[in-house]
Amino acid sequence: MQHVMPAAGLRSDFAAALSGRDGSGPPISRSRLDNGLEIVVIPDRRVPVVTHMVWYRNGSADDPLGQSGIAHFLEHLMFKGTERHPAGEFSKVVSALGGQENAFTSFDYTAYFQRVAPHHLERMMEFEADRMSGLNFDEAVVAPERDVVLEERRMRVETDPSAQLSEAMAASLFVHHPYGIPIIGWMHEIEGLSRKHALDYYRRFYSPDNAILVVAGDVDPADVIRLAETTYGRNTPHGDRSERLRPREPEPRAARRVSVADPKVEQPTLQRLYLVPSSRTAGNREAHALEVLAELLGGGPTSHLYRTLVLESGRAVNAGAWYMGSAIDETRFSAYAVPAAGVSPAELEPEFDRAIASCMSRVSEDAIERSKTRLIAETIYSLDSQGSLARIYGSALAVGETLEDVRRWPEDIRAITRDDLAEVAQKFLTSRRSVTGYLLKDTSC
Amino acid sequence: MQHVMPAAGLRSDFAAALSGRDGSGPPISRSRLDNGLEIVVIPDRRVPVVTHMVWYRNGSADDPLGQSGIAHFLEHLMFKGTERHPAGEFSKVVSALGGQENAFTSFDYTAYFQRVAPHHLERMMEFEADRMSGLNFDEAVVAPERDVVLEERRMRVETDPSAQLSEAMAASLFVHHPYGIPIIGWMHEIEGLSRKHALDYYRRFYSPDNAILVVAGDVDPADVIRLAETTYGRNTPHGDRSERLRPREPEPRAARRVSVADPKVEQPTLQRLYLVPSSRTAGNREAHALEVLAELLGGGPTSHLYRTLVLESGRAVNAGAWYMGSAIDETRFSAYAVPAAGVSPAELEPEFDRAIASCMSRVSEDAIERSKTRLIAETIYSLDSQGSLARIYGSALAVGETLEDVRRWPEDIRAITRDDLAEVAQKFLTSRRSVTGYLLKDTSC
Repeated sequence: MQHVMPAAGLRSDFAAALSGRDGSGPPISRSRLDNGLEIVVIPDRRVPVVTHMVWYRNGSADDPLGQSGIAHFLEHLMFKGTERHPAGEFSKVVSALGGQENAFTSFDYTAYFQRVAPHHLERMMEFEADRMSGLNFDEAVVAPERDVVLEERRMRVETDPSAQLSEAMAASLFVHHPYGIPIIGWMHEIEGLSRKHALDYYRRFYSPDNAILVVAGDVDPADVIRLAETTYGRNTPHGDRSERLRPREPEPRAARRVSVADPKVEQPTLQRLYLVPSSRTAGNREAHALEVLAELLGGGPTSHLYRTLVLESGRAVNAGAWYMGSAIDETRFSAYAVPAAGVSPAELEPEFDRAIASCMSRVSEDAIERSKTRLIAETIYSLDSQGSLARIYGSALAVGETLEDVRRWPEDIRAITRDDLAEVAQKFLTSRRSVTGYLLKDTSC
Repeated sequence: MQHVMPAAGLRSDFAAALSGRDGSGPPISRSRLDNGLEIVVIPDRRVPVVTHMVWYRNGSADDPLGQSGIAHFLEHLMFKGTERHPAGEFSKVVSALGGQENAFTSFDYTAYFQRVAPHHLERMMEFEADRMSGLNFDEAVVAPERDVVLEERRMRVETDPSAQLSEAMAASLFVHHPYGIPIIGWMHEIEGLSRKHALDYYRRFYSPDNAILVVAGDVDPADVIRLAETTYGRNTPHGDRSERLRPREPEPRAARRVSVADPKVEQPTLQRLYLVPSSRTAGNREAHALEVLAELLGGGPTSHLYRTLVLESGRAVNAGAWYMGSAIDETRFSAYAVPAAGVSPAELEPEFDRAIASCMSRVSEDAIERSKTRLIAETIYSLDSQGSLARIYGSALAVGETLEDVRRWPEDIRAITRDDLAEVAQKFLTSRRSVTGYLLKDTSC
């Protein structure tokens, strides 16, 4: 267990990072510009680097009906230049400054970030504020970039049976909510995305009052706020203030199964999704219990699923579980197993089901405590990266959690009991809430 | 086969009804009022009765996101009175005149009809035009009626495992399109329907330019149009002219399975849905081929599925198939089998699959011809009812088909060949496009 026990120094960093009250620096600061831009500054003096992120409170689940993929398409277009800066200039500058940049689109948010030396922060803010309002929507840019996205989908999904199974399972799990639609979008809807769609979407969501600026690093909060005022402060709010329209899933009643058979499949797998509450739809206790349960059930080689199916029976070569807890609406809890040679997913399934069902009656108190320690420790390690630190705060705020939720997280996880785990396991890991997936080798052709 | 061969008299009636050109009366007339109301008059002098229908081009698939069930809720509210006529008066008048009335909500349309003696037609039009614009939306009416709908759902779905399986299968078949949402709505969304939702919906859709008036009976088209002008003509158009927003399904890639187990189940069943084109998304030839295929595969005791599974092997006690061809968007083709005592749905499934797969290679030319004759004959018989006659035209026009499509239907069905059938069977009845459902007895409690 050596590798998951945090060193004392890290533990102290963790507390410092999460509370901002280690005495060595200013606390985490949260403020708001007049135009609605929310600002969070996270002191992190360990390295002479600053992480600059802008989080927009819109993700693929906010894509208008029939325009799936548009959040992700906008993420692409954000790199295609503005009226003031031609395509590629921003990226070239980041690179020339020895920095890094990236962006990602999730179900609930879209985020952009750069990592540079602290004295370049203002320049990053100028560029980022500029593309928040002055993006170039020339048809000459939009149409070729749509082709890039189509190609991305072709590469990632259309030629990958495993991705196809994931999409089909999510579509079966979420019968009503847009979490069932792939982030990248359905092929035929990406094909239909137009310049007008992109522009309407940009005008609706790319507005300072829909964004959160997260700056982590060796910076003074007052400096960051001042810089934000002279850069982002010039952006006029124009976002659609209407509430995110998120239909709620009906109560699940039917066990569902999905299978994809393809000649390209080399390794069949057995997968399972359950519809479960997220940190926002459940009380924290239920969401945290599901986090611990995923770790206990399927977090690595000491987990219950791995021990039972791989080490004890040998009928699987891998097994695990995960929980997507940070989400605005009801979310997914997943378990999976990779059958050993000669064992089909269908043959493995009864044993897999028994392993899931027996988890809480078979694990020791010690295993539960180790799971909690592991979860917390993994987060501590991830905080070594300033990017992860900023990401934890940004994603939490973007889905509507509070700084206090983040700060309390380790003690909340510690407080989870065996009864909490047994309760969520019994309540949510039921066949009625489930989709079972088989990835199979198609040998008919 | 005696019972499916139409009598010469009926055949002539059929041609007359479909073409309106039997020489004995005026042809079917189609016109439009200035306010956009479309009018179709179908001469039918067989009985001294008139059928008066109003079709609105909005059904449950047009329910705004998060407000599932509102089309059906409006259908209920349409019986709750207007400013001029209190709740129940319209129904009382129809009944006092010896008439009949009803209403129905489908995926693509909502319709209201009365059947009365021809000289009462004007009175029906007055009432119907009145509730097209003057509906009562007092909270005292809306809230109790919502409870009525909730009770209807409880009775029809919540306590019926078979209805739950149907809902879950449709939700799995349509991963993106609202045909996957039940017409009556999801329970938690019906609960949320407010007076404001209902009023907004009514204002958007209940407008003369969104409606089709269909009058069948012993009437003169000129008289009907004159009456329509003095009644419906007073309604002001105010509908939302925006196109119906109907997302297209992604290309299906995964075979899906759904099972519902319940102690109340007495008779397990095996069900299958395939995503297939409708009359509007396919060319007529494909849709008509699917109609014939459903009849050939599962239309009654001479069909291929029944013969194979019930008469030959005896492993099922019933089997059949149907196709919901008249729809705006991609639709469902269904096949089912009821296993014999001691046979589980899972045990029956391989044989069921083989029967579906072997259909086109095993049926005779004669069986194909008989299926087409049967289909056409069933429609002829249904035309004996004036209500069915009006309904065929109303539903066709409401989903965007033309009078010519209806007129040509018998000859189009006749023209379908074995090759057409083999082509649609191979193209659409594939596991990737399918959802398989098991209704099972839960014996665990």
